[in-house]
Amino acid sequence: MSRVRVHNFSISLDGFATGEGQSADAPFGHAGHRLVGWMKATRFWHELGVVEPGEETGSAGVDNAFAERFGPGIGAEIMGANKFGPPGWQDDPQWRGWWGENPPFHTPTYVLTHRPRPALAMDGGTTFHFLDATPQDALAVAREGARGQDVRIGGGPGTVRQFLAAGLVDHLHAVQVPILLGRGVRLWDGLEGLEQHYRVEAVSSPGGVVHLTFSR
Amino acid sequence: MSRVRVHNFSISLDGFATGEGQSADAPFGHAGHRLVGWMKATRFWHELGVVEPGEETGSAGVDNAFAERFGPGIGAEIMGANKFGPPGWQDDPQWRGWWGENPPFHTPTYVLTHRPRPALAMDGGTTFHFLDATPQDALAVAREGARGQDVRIGGGPGTVRQFLAAGLVDHLHAVQVPILLGRGVRLWDGLEGLEQHYRVEAVSSPGGVVHLTFSR
Repeated sequence: MSRVRVHNFSISLDGFATGEGQSADAPFGHAGHRLVGWMKATRFWHELGVVEPGEETGSAGVDNAFAERFGPGIGAEIMGANKFGPPGWQDDPQWRGWWGENPPFHTPTYVLTHRPRPALAMDGGTTFHFLDATPQDALAVAREGARGQDVRIGGGPGTVRQFLAAGLVDHLHAVQVPILLGRGVRLWDGLEGLEQHYRVEAVSSPGGVVHLTFSR
Repeated sequence: MSRVRVHNFSISLDGFATGEGQSADAPFGHAGHRLVGWMKATRFWHELGVVEPGEETGSAGVDNAFAERFGPGIGAEIMGANKFGPPGWQDDPQWRGWWGENPPFHTPTYVLTHRPRPALAMDGGTTFHFLDATPQDALAVAREGARGQDVRIGGGPGTVRQFLAAGLVDHLHAVQVPILLGRGVRLWDGLEGLEQHYRVEAVSSPGGVVHLTFSR
């Protein structure tokens, strides 16, 4: 059976996975880029090609080891509407996601929204499909799209939390960043006792973050 | 200048320092003893004498190294009313704290309450003083009692948070335990940007917890 995985999911010390005030200019709201700084410093990020040539190549230590697990074995991604675009993107028929013409997913990618639209084929193997479905039903569709490979739940926090609450996630990799955001959307709300269903590990990195894994 | 320190302050992954439903039978509410299990496994705890003779002596690794910092250099403790007793202890003139006749503080210990009562001298050097005061004023009194040594803020979470928000804490040692409590009293609420005033470190322990230190 293919597994359901979450990778590189950053949260603040106080548990927020995104800040307040998300917009086209601020995908993470007042959090800015502080939650993803650890990943931008890795070789993984540099090899995604999102970095200008000539910049540093990035670290290859523990942060990178975790970061690189993002892609291998993944055959599809599911993301929530709030990850695909800023508030109101559903009203913009031209919106094609945050990531330009070659998004970093390279698989079928299922966007959960109450207002589906026709599929969007991008460069590099990513096709966005738009689904109005429960987590269970969306997962069944994504598993077909993944052709036996694993399905990644890409976020945002509300979507990850829904899949966790429904018992659908086999592997969660959350990265705790040493900042206090104070406000935004929390990952852990309503998940009392979640650890009882998983083996939980925490490892601190010289980069200052803590990698938390829940696996079963 | 004497410093203000917090030690061995356990929180869940979702940030709760105590559970819901605190009572005389359940000092941490539904959290039970899960938040303090890491400390009970240390040599520090065994040497406090709270363990039956003949039991294991406890670990002497990183968890113990942090735990042992609780006492040295401390000349006084400040605690909130919710740490001193279960809800309603103010109505019980016989209540002498949770800790028996020889509490583990061994210094003047200032209990913040809106209903002060006469001081209580216990065995082993602990005297409980009851103060209706702001954090700043309580700290001034405790510093006198500490005679040049440091002052420990002993909790609960509301009290630690108040002292943090007022900028009064020089060293915070919080211990993140890999459980999700879901409900209770959070440590981090309302502390956006706290990390900017501190050097923050996180270290994971083989025991499964993460030691977070905020120091300045």
